[in-house]
Amino acid sequence: MAIRYPNGKQFRQPTETASKLKSASAKTSFSDRGMTLEQELNQSNAYYLNHDVAVIHKKPTPIQIVNVDYPKRSAAVIKEAYFKQASTTDYNGVYRGNYIDFDAKETQNATSFPLHNFHEHQVEHMRQCIKHGGICFAIIKFVKLDQIFLFKATDLFSYWDNMDATKGRKSIPLADIQKNGILIQYHIQPLIPYLEAVDQLIDLRR
Amino acid sequence: MAIRYPNGKQFRQPTETASKLKSASAKTSFSDRGMTLEQELNQSNAYYLNHDVAVIHKKPTPIQIVNVDYPKRSAAVIKEAYFKQASTTDYNGVYRGNYIDFDAKETQNATSFPLHNFHEHQVEHMRQCIKHGGICFAIIKFVKLDQIFLFKATDLFSYWDNMDATKGRKSIPLADIQKNGILIQYHIQPLIPYLEAVDQLIDLRR
Repeated sequence: MAIRYPNGKQFRQPTETASKLKSASAKTSFSDRGMTLEQELNQSNAYYLNHDVAVIHKKPTPIQIVNVDYPKRSAAVIKEAYFKQASTTDYNGVYRGNYIDFDAKETQNATSFPLHNFHEHQVEHMRQCIKHGGICFAIIKFVKLDQIFLFKATDLFSYWDNMDATKGRKSIPLADIQKNGILIQYHIQPLIPYLEAVDQLIDLRR
Repeated sequence: MAIRYPNGKQFRQPTETASKLKSASAKTSFSDRGMTLEQELNQSNAYYLNHDVAVIHKKPTPIQIVNVDYPKRSAAVIKEAYFKQASTTDYNGVYRGNYIDFDAKETQNATSFPLHNFHEHQVEHMRQCIKHGGICFAIIKFVKLDQIFLFKATDLFSYWDNMDATKGRKSIPLADIQKNGILIQYHIQPLIPYLEAVDQLIDLRR
């Protein structure tokens, strides 16, 4: 569920926003060059929901509320609050009787996916979900290549652990993602038909 | 994941807070008489997570952000925001390979559970989740009786639809909840062992 300003402009999570503001590629993401991956996925999830395919929602942005006004006869107003780092992934839901849990990441990098896009507790959360029978993955978009991949969490773990253990490389080469991930071609309805890739993961478990 | 004020006091969702502020029983829930059902469930879910039983989290409170400051070299500050009505239930996750989705409601009423505690879109969300193989229910606490029940979403639907269709009664009699629901006895670890009741729902599907 996207958080929007009253003018309808979508609000983006601070970690994302902040890093984009700092990065050279900042302006592009605020330009009219198109939707963010989050917007594309929210639209796709709305399609899946409306067409009885799956129930998958983006979780609200976690906020640390510091000061709230409760004016008489009108809505409570949050006067001071801060963004909190999410302790889980952004998306979860149910599809074909399976618990689905994933995070979506965009990168401006054209040759590899930097692992710092993930936080330790997000990876840990996916490990726990898999342990209990959930289907977990990352949806990774290489913005400059305009390519989107579904990358299995279990594959992500091996790169993550290698980074931790042996101070190995801090990114996943594009070639590896092209080889082990599932390419998701843009479509019209839905825009990102990622559940077709999830079908492959479900069938693997059969 | 509970949202807390810096002093550690738990923040409660506005719909809940507002109604409690208005209701005669308001003060009790802000007193030191004990934890709210939400706090009890968060503690129970933390136990389940730490003991590798299940991964179930409370979703963050949805906030409509209107005005954000991005001061240089410091964290973004939300200067104006409002509480949004949740479009789904508050809790979901994975247990024994199943998608679990539920909402938790407290009532000060000692003889029946008022259906206005639910919103149409929450009921609709549970219908959709069930359609795709999820396990959905409500955890209802009768505060004055100190009794907690798991009440199947499918049972809830029949009362909800009857209320809509025939302008029938707007509450579920306690006796019906005692008869059709599953009583959950307080425990120590976890405080509310509701997954034992969920086991019964899972086994029913076998």
